[in-house]
Amino acid sequence: MPPPPPRPRARSLGLTFGSLPTGEHNAITDVPGVRVGHVTVWRDEPDGIGRTGVTAIVPDDVGELFRRPMTGGTSVLNGAGELTGSIDLRERGAVETPIVLTSTNNVGRGYDAVVEALFAAGEVDVINPIVGECDDSYLDDIARRWMTTADALAAIDGAAGGPVAEGVVGAGTGMSTMGHKSGIGTSSRVLDGLGTVGVLVLANFGGAANVRIGGVAVGDRLVAGRTTAPVLDDGGSCIGVVLTDIPLDAKQLERVARRIGLGLARVGSVAHNGSGEIFCAVSTANRRPRTATGITEQSSVRGSAIDDVFLAVVDATEEAVVNALFVADTVTGVGGNVSPGLPVDRILGWINR
Amino acid sequence: MPPPPPRPRARSLGLTFGSLPTGEHNAITDVPGVRVGHVTVWRDEPDGIGRTGVTAIVPDDVGELFRRPMTGGTSVLNGAGELTGSIDLRERGAVETPIVLTSTNNVGRGYDAVVEALFAAGEVDVINPIVGECDDSYLDDIARRWMTTADALAAIDGAAGGPVAEGVVGAGTGMSTMGHKSGIGTSSRVLDGLGTVGVLVLANFGGAANVRIGGVAVGDRLVAGRTTAPVLDDGGSCIGVVLTDIPLDAKQLERVARRIGLGLARVGSVAHNGSGEIFCAVSTANRRPRTATGITEQSSVRGSAIDDVFLAVVDATEEAVVNALFVADTVTGVGGNVSPGLPVDRILGWINR
Amino acid sequence: MPPPPPRPRARSLGLTFGSLPTGEHNAITDVPGVRVGHVTVWRDEPDGIGRTGVTAIVPDDVGELFRRPMTGGTSVLNGAGELTGSIDLRERGAVETPIVLTSTNNVGRGYDAVVEALFAAGEVDVINPIVGECDDSYLDDIARRWMTTADALAAIDGAAGGPVAEGVVGAGTGMSTMGHKSGIGTSSRVLDGLGTVGVLVLANFGGAANVRIGGVAVGDRLVAGRTTAPVLDDGGSCIGVVLTDIPLDAKQLERVARRIGLGLARVGSVAHNGSGEIFCAVSTANRRPRTATGITEQSSVRGSAIDDVFLAVVDATEEAVVNALFVADTVTGVGGNVSPGLPVDRILGWINR
Amino acid sequence: MPPPPPRPRARSLGLTFGSLPTGEHNAITDVPGVRVGHVTVWRDEPDGIGRTGVTAIVPDDVGELFRRPMTGGTSVLNGAGELTGSIDLRERGAVETPIVLTSTNNVGRGYDAVVEALFAAGEVDVINPIVGECDDSYLDDIARRWMTTADALAAIDGAAGGPVAEGVVGAGTGMSTMGHKSGIGTSSRVLDGLGTVGVLVLANFGGAANVRIGGVAVGDRLVAGRTTAPVLDDGGSCIGVVLTDIPLDAKQLERVARRIGLGLARVGSVAHNGSGEIFCAVSTANRRPRTATGITEQSSVRGSAIDDVFLAVVDATEEAVVNALFVADTVTGVGGNVSPGLPVDRILGWINR
Repeated sequence: MPPPPPRPRARSLGLTFGSLPTGEHNAITDVPGVRVGHVTVWRDEPDGIGRTGVTAIVPDDVGELFRRPMTGGTSVLNGAGELTGSIDLRERGAVETPIVLTSTNNVGRGYDAVVEALFAAGEVDVINPIVGECDDSYLDDIARRWMTTADALAAIDGAAGGPVAEGVVGAGTGMSTMGHKSGIGTSSRVLDGLGTVGVLVLANFGGAANVRIGGVAVGDRLVAGRTTAPVLDDGGSCIGVVLTDIPLDAKQLERVARRIGLGLARVGSVAHNGSGEIFCAVSTANRRPRTATGITEQSSVRGSAIDDVFLAVVDATEEAVVNALFVADTVTGVGGNVSPGLPVDRILGWINR
Repeated sequence: MPPPPPRPRARSLGLTFGSLPTGEHNAITDVPGVRVGHVTVWRDEPDGIGRTGVTAIVPDDVGELFRRPMTGGTSVLNGAGELTGSIDLRERGAVETPIVLTSTNNVGRGYDAVVEALFAAGEVDVINPIVGECDDSYLDDIARRWMTTADALAAIDGAAGGPVAEGVVGAGTGMSTMGHKSGIGTSSRVLDGLGTVGVLVLANFGGAANVRIGGVAVGDRLVAGRTTAPVLDDGGSCIGVVLTDIPLDAKQLERVARRIGLGLARVGSVAHNGSGEIFCAVSTANRRPRTATGITEQSSVRGSAIDDVFLAVVDATEEAVVNALFVADTVTGVGGNVSPGLPVDRILGWINR
Repeated sequence: MPPPPPRPRARSLGLTFGSLPTGEHNAITDVPGVRVGHVTVWRDEPDGIGRTGVTAIVPDDVGELFRRPMTGGTSVLNGAGELTGSIDLRERGAVETPIVLTSTNNVGRGYDAVVEALFAAGEVDVINPIVGECDDSYLDDIARRWMTTADALAAIDGAAGGPVAEGVVGAGTGMSTMGHKSGIGTSSRVLDGLGTVGVLVLANFGGAANVRIGGVAVGDRLVAGRTTAPVLDDGGSCIGVVLTDIPLDAKQLERVARRIGLGLARVGSVAHNGSGEIFCAVSTANRRPRTATGITEQSSVRGSAIDDVFLAVVDATEEAVVNALFVADTVTGVGGNVSPGLPVDRILGWINR
Repeated sequence: MPPPPPRPRARSLGLTFGSLPTGEHNAITDVPGVRVGHVTVWRDEPDGIGRTGVTAIVPDDVGELFRRPMTGGTSVLNGAGELTGSIDLRERGAVETPIVLTSTNNVGRGYDAVVEALFAAGEVDVINPIVGECDDSYLDDIARRWMTTADALAAIDGAAGGPVAEGVVGAGTGMSTMGHKSGIGTSSRVLDGLGTVGVLVLANFGGAANVRIGGVAVGDRLVAGRTTAPVLDDGGSCIGVVLTDIPLDAKQLERVARRIGLGLARVGSVAHNGSGEIFCAVSTANRRPRTATGITEQSSVRGSAIDDVFLAVVDATEEAVVNALFVADTVTGVGGNVSPGLPVDRILGWINR
């Protein structure tokens, strides 16, 4: 049994999220140069149950990114999780590695893969990779540790522009959100005269009672009708990534990353105690040679234009999470655990009354 | 012309905000021992235009609070504002003063008043008062600096339990939110077997286009119909305060305070660049003599109970902001500036379709 | 009895602090445009005992600073104290007010004075003043609240360039450090081809047992010989301010401010539990109109040049604290409390053996 | 050629660091239950040059630590480095894994080893390992990636109490500090009636010109006489770990961790731009079952006792770094790079004049 095929995205079903226009693919790859790669690890009996994977966001070739880092920032809404590289991002704001997302116990392998990718790019140097995680142990037989360093390397190497697969794919393969199957979601916004803002989430958070779609609290009705185990409500995590070609400095990008949390709130997150809601934001427009010294110039946006970026992030995050939920269909995993696809039709009925 | 009388609160008009029960007054004063005092400064020509004031949240008598501080935490969603005492709250988590809210330029007078209140309570000692602010210069003639230290002292001294006046009152007198008149709002939740969570906001943030009531994005329709100046959309601030009698430690209270931002997101905040969305949370259940030394015991909540507190804060914050908007009617201020009351009937029509 | 006259600075007695050259006055005013103003409040019986004051660091005219803010950052080593304006510095990194230092209970009056200074400069607007404090209640009769808003305003208005008075002056009048009288101290360093780094401290921290002069731990010998009350060892605070004309961005200035703590460590600070060791750093070279919008350029230093700035701050901070201790002679205050001048001759004997 | 044998520790040569007594072994293992394991990776031609390794600090059996986490905190002086698990430590303050130290590019393998150790302990669950790093690429041929997950697992499994090997051992094998060979250093202090404070550092920071031994700035004289490449001055990092059996809460442990930076300042650190000076502190006295829920009690130290802990950390950190420098003798590594042992005799001559 292969992974379930993707269902329609939210916007194709008539939902809208704010009034800003999306980019061509309504995806993080709408930011020029940004690529995404997924490796889905899916195993079925008699080989054991594998429901995991890895996703890489690659803003430039690995060697080039190392030699001319971009500027970035990070923010934490609730920190029961991991995003390696965060300490350095917070201190110096330099993004010199792809951003790798995977399951909790495989962060080390994602880290190792970035080192290998760097060496393969001809740079034998030290690096602090950026690797984030969520917990997919509800569906994946984590004891098998299916994912390998080679899988993570393949996700980096295979990253491509254009449309981005969502839902049950890559790092999202085993993830669930607010009691339902989710995974990867993405969305973008175009700001006239400024550039593009793209968001990608690895969504694995919250309880079913809190679901809000299109702002409407539908969680109570979802919970009333459900038959699946409430164990899925115990939290989880959400890694959110913003890419943009708008020039922002490191401090601003921290602030941009922080707005991802406001998008999560719109869909019902209260940032559970055990949840790792951890974010980063990267500008492809602010780069410097890593050997830069002396006095250099950097451009950044001022005034009300920053508010436009903030709004774009909140709107795109809300849409990305809804995409992750809408696109992902039901998955059965280890021990027969079921993560049900969100009943989209019923929800659309409720909110369109 | 006196301040406009209060309009109905949101819940009395049929709105609900989550499924947790409220306290008796649906106010921060539902937390045992917590009192609120307002001094409204309202002047009209020919005396000049005054639309400002001060609000004090007093969790215990000033002297007693100093001698046996409570435990607290603070969090910043966007920091273009002020909450004095924050540095000490972050470091030691001790709340030893009332929490005073007022307009930006009068923070110093609020600070001075806390010192005077401490001395009046017989404690001639040094103190780091907690004073927060928002900017009411759209309506108030700030050049007149109406508010005095004596006003702030009167707010502290006059604090009382029971129902809390909302909207155009105290520090909220001159405040506006998302293009409409707002001010003070409050709400509470009761967690079975744990205690009460109360929230009070001084709401002065956001743009009209972003308003969400009951989760429904009504901003576009509001903007389409409005005739008032969009200058009100330029940001502002929101101070949010949580009081609870549930035992939480200082680190947990930082995390509790952070959830206020998620409630603001539900009503439309994207945390504007120029906004001071600054929060604190205080537990009345964790107190120690300020002279405590050696090894002491402290109780705190663990596991899923923390999530219940988080949910209570998000729900109560959403309701508190909507109360501030619903209760406050139109105010005309300095230079003829108008902050229109939210058209509640139209909105109820839209969301109840 | 007037305040004791200043004693010699450390460098004039042969001490050195690293190998970088100082500026002309070895003071924060060596940074072009930076001025310092002190108002000393000194009262003796029968009028009561006053040992307090206020110091203002004024990097530009008040109105001009408001219209074209500088860039700044803040950092906290131990946060049992106050530096208003910190939240906004952390968020936006804009310095739009003078930096006022005073005693704990008078922060509100310092705040009020900045508002008045702004209005006097023709800007009727809202502002978040930067006001820091230490506790001088060991020497000053704080019940009298001698310092007024007018005093703080006079310190701002009277700020001047050139040599800076140290020790028992301005905000330093009633302060003590590591069991001995101290107060204001300053020092500067010139970085070839980059610019000048100036540091000013309001020193009021630590215990006598920890004193290190020239790196040598002399505390044990000081304590062995002393007859004064160890109550002076209970902590206190230290506000440290860096000004520089080297271009640094807001995030870098946070990091620069953090290095003040390393200078304090060199003279013996362990950052006591009750101490407010709170710092800020400002670059006069990075300014923008407060109305700036769209995309702007900002220059900043990269690579090893940052390390030179860090070293300059640590060396200058160490020297500034030693200046504060060396210059300040014995002061007797309220209730007959004595803060003894550091026995400089004995210490020089010990460390020059 | 094996690693150079250890040279004498600082205290055995007559140096002292404050007046607090040390524990039995003057090591982090003086804290009851704390064990340390090293695996040194040392290769010579014709096999290639290996100068790396891994060190594990194990406060309890891996499974037991997971089931009953300890309380911890983390702090960053300069963040150009990595300590995985930091985000969760900051949020929840729960220490549920050993602390693994290694070289930069091998963090992923250290992470993987903790997962394997957890599984081996019978806990098939998800975990956020704590893994820190410094850069040993000056001496180690990092292209060979000698260190394996099995090495890290062996360091965890082989951890023992009693004396701790210092200098050129474990993660310290390839590290250098302020222009000289260093590596692992440790020290402890006993606080009467409270308990024991132990510090372990992986020292790899700073420039030779800044060395201070016993407080005395000897860097200038060291630099004057040296013939080795100044490339060693370019920074590096320092991971510092505090263990204690004194009850402290998570917020306090953050503050305790922060004091490690003050100890580094005493030996000359200015926290270089490219340095990862990252710390954590753990109390073995505050544990809870990971499944704890409801209201629980926690004990912690109050008042002046906290200052004693702070002082113990600063003193022990200073001594630990000096131990790392004194014990480590000269090592020649990849490309013939030499990291010279600190000329201890000359320095003792200078400071004992």
